[in-house]
Amino acid sequence: MTRTLWTRARIEGAAGDADELLAEGGRILAVGRDLPRQGARIVDCDGRLMTAAPVDCHTHLVFGGDRAGEFEQRLDGATYEEIAQAGGGIRASVRAVRSMTVEELVAESLPRLDHLLSEGVSTVEVKSGYGLSVEAEMNMLRAARALATRRKVRIRTSWLAAHALPPEYAGRATDYIREVAIAGLDAAHAEGLVDAVDGFCERIAFSTEELAPLFDRARALGLPVRLHAEQLSHSGGTAFAARHGALSADHLEHATEADAALLAAAGSVAVLLPGAFYMLRETVRPPVAAFRAAGVPMALATDCNPGTSPMTSILMTMNMGATLFRMTVPECLAGVTAHAARALGLATETGRIAPGLSADLALWDVERPAQLVARIGFNPLHARIFQGETA
Amino acid sequence: MTRTLWTRARIEGAAGDADELLAEGGRILAVGRDLPRQGARIVDCDGRLMTAAPVDCHTHLVFGGDRAGEFEQRLDGATYEEIAQAGGGIRASVRAVRSMTVEELVAESLPRLDHLLSEGVSTVEVKSGYGLSVEAEMNMLRAARALATRRKVRIRTSWLAAHALPPEYAGRATDYIREVAIAGLDAAHAEGLVDAVDGFCERIAFSTEELAPLFDRARALGLPVRLHAEQLSHSGGTAFAARHGALSADHLEHATEADAALLAAAGSVAVLLPGAFYMLRETVRPPVAAFRAAGVPMALATDCNPGTSPMTSILMTMNMGATLFRMTVPECLAGVTAHAARALGLATETGRIAPGLSADLALWDVERPAQLVARIGFNPLHARIFQGETA
Ligand SMILES: [Zn+2]
Ligand SMILES: [Zn+2]
Repeated sequence: MTRTLWTRARIEGAAGDADELLAEGGRILAVGRDLPRQGARIVDCDGRLMTAAPVDCHTHLVFGGDRAGEFEQRLDGATYEEIAQAGGGIRASVRAVRSMTVEELVAESLPRLDHLLSEGVSTVEVKSGYGLSVEAEMNMLRAARALATRRKVRIRTSWLAAHALPPEYAGRATDYIREVAIAGLDAAHAEGLVDAVDGFCERIAFSTEELAPLFDRARALGLPVRLHAEQLSHSGGTAFAARHGALSADHLEHATEADAALLAAAGSVAVLLPGAFYMLRETVRPPVAAFRAAGVPMALATDCNPGTSPMTSILMTMNMGATLFRMTVPECLAGVTAHAARALGLATETGRIAPGLSADLALWDVERPAQLVARIGFNPLHARIFQGETA
Repeated sequence: MTRTLWTRARIEGAAGDADELLAEGGRILAVGRDLPRQGARIVDCDGRLMTAAPVDCHTHLVFGGDRAGEFEQRLDGATYEEIAQAGGGIRASVRAVRSMTVEELVAESLPRLDHLLSEGVSTVEVKSGYGLSVEAEMNMLRAARALATRRKVRIRTSWLAAHALPPEYAGRATDYIREVAIAGLDAAHAEGLVDAVDGFCERIAFSTEELAPLFDRARALGLPVRLHAEQLSHSGGTAFAARHGALSADHLEHATEADAALLAAAGSVAVLLPGAFYMLRETVRPPVAAFRAAGVPMALATDCNPGTSPMTSILMTMNMGATLFRMTVPECLAGVTAHAARALGLATETGRIAPGLSADLALWDVERPAQLVARIGFNPLHARIFQGETA
């Protein structure tokens, strides 16, 4: 098995004066000083900062088409309602995805994935949710799985058929959940396409009552759940997610202190998505102080999607976490590494530098994490290491 | 002389169905259809969008040291006053710059410049202002001039000794303006270092009265002026700048409708800097509607600096212009091209696609400008062309 020893690294979070990391077979063997060199390829890090490779734990990266035209229309004065009535918004993405093959979805998504990888990302969560039919939702996750065969990256999928109600089910949300979200979950799970089940709990999407049978089915299949909750209003999604032992509740601008206590008790991660907050010019911030006080782990993710967060930068996500949400530098870094991995159920697999975990590392041309968080539009990545190999 | 013909381009702003651009000796000869091919190297653009290359018309790109530590301290709760009292803020940058050689300044600035160039930028304005002594200010502009010998880029310098009062002149602003800002301007101009004269008009910096002798001296030397005005409060800088026929007034969050009328009458550009607005979490926006109504050309720039806008992305600058200031897509694009060039006195040299101008072009892997503005953390540059050559 290949052994590699990285020397003279500033290892973020390592105890004492540790400046070496030894990996074998893609796993971290040891972190320390004067580690054994025999049989190891030596990589001199020349004093660079080494962190766990970032994890983007909430994306809608697989999609088709482009909604920059709507961005332009909104700046020119069109309202969301006018755009939706003209067939825009999420319906435009659904039309595009339904018309595309898996291979076309892969081709359109790869440049977005490549930008994330250029910032060192090891692991990307990808949701369905623009198909809204059994076949089109499955195609999205087939495309997501295919991404992992095209690049050296770990992909985790979420079944998000409960993202929006397609026009053909207008007024029949319960039917949609049964006939598409649940029936499709069974089929997608049988094909090995699903790592977690997600939903959008909001007045404009689904209620907790409508989502309950879906989450029950997820549990029956042994799949973890997570939820888009309290983004635009307080809809009770966080309490619902916590009751179901969710890996995470996501967005959370309108979450309360009581919600923070419930997440803490459930061991769920609060996934904060400042890109959507920024693009939508929201003013209500997620209760970061309450999460901090309750000990809820906070993650940060790009929420990469064609409408409300067309963002493919994990570095800019950290900057927004600090600038917009007043998270500290260590919180931002943990938010895109250890806590992001935990939100995907990967806490013992990636996102931290510790023996036994995958050697997913990033080497940066900076001295300390604040220099990763403070800058805007600057990528100091020196090397991305995935499962022990420079990738 | 080298002739190049770009074919099958989507030429932004070109009349009718023009899809070809012919350049010779670094200048645009013609824009049209079925242009003469003889003697020309043919470059097939394959339907890509061609724009004028972006111009970054307001930066403090040459500096030394790093203030990410302060960013971190502020997130941890330190106030600006506490940081300043501990020797941080602009004084930290002054200490760093005074301790560095020209070559060291160049070396620290090149990665920032390179990031701008990676987004197609042809022209970068660079200010002094962290030296605050005659020699250190001159060294900053020597470094700025040296950048143009290391990369294929047009550099325009601004003498900004009137940026802050150094501790050794505390309480003696008038002496500082005479002994450093004006005496240094004479010396720097004699060495060919100065393209424009700039100042920071603000309660925490200099008043219009203090700046008047400096601007008079600039006029006597035949140098254009511009001014940091109305960023944190309304200090009358815009009216003062307009009276002096300034190329631009910059920041302008607290400018008024009356200021807009004065800028329009003077033909000055309003340079808006959303990066600093974002980082400082300002809430008062520049009066974009008033500028629009008065016909004031609006430019957008990174304001790249170590403290309030550590940004090296002209694409993110456009996104912030749209998202934070509600500028339209055409306004954002003109803001980083034609109007930015005008703010540097380069309206007939670069920033537009028209015969006679320098062939400074950007080719993008997108179909239309909205796709440049809407995305975050994505660089679709296909090729950067500087003075007719792919650079
Ligand atoms: Zn989402
Ligand atoms: Zn400035």
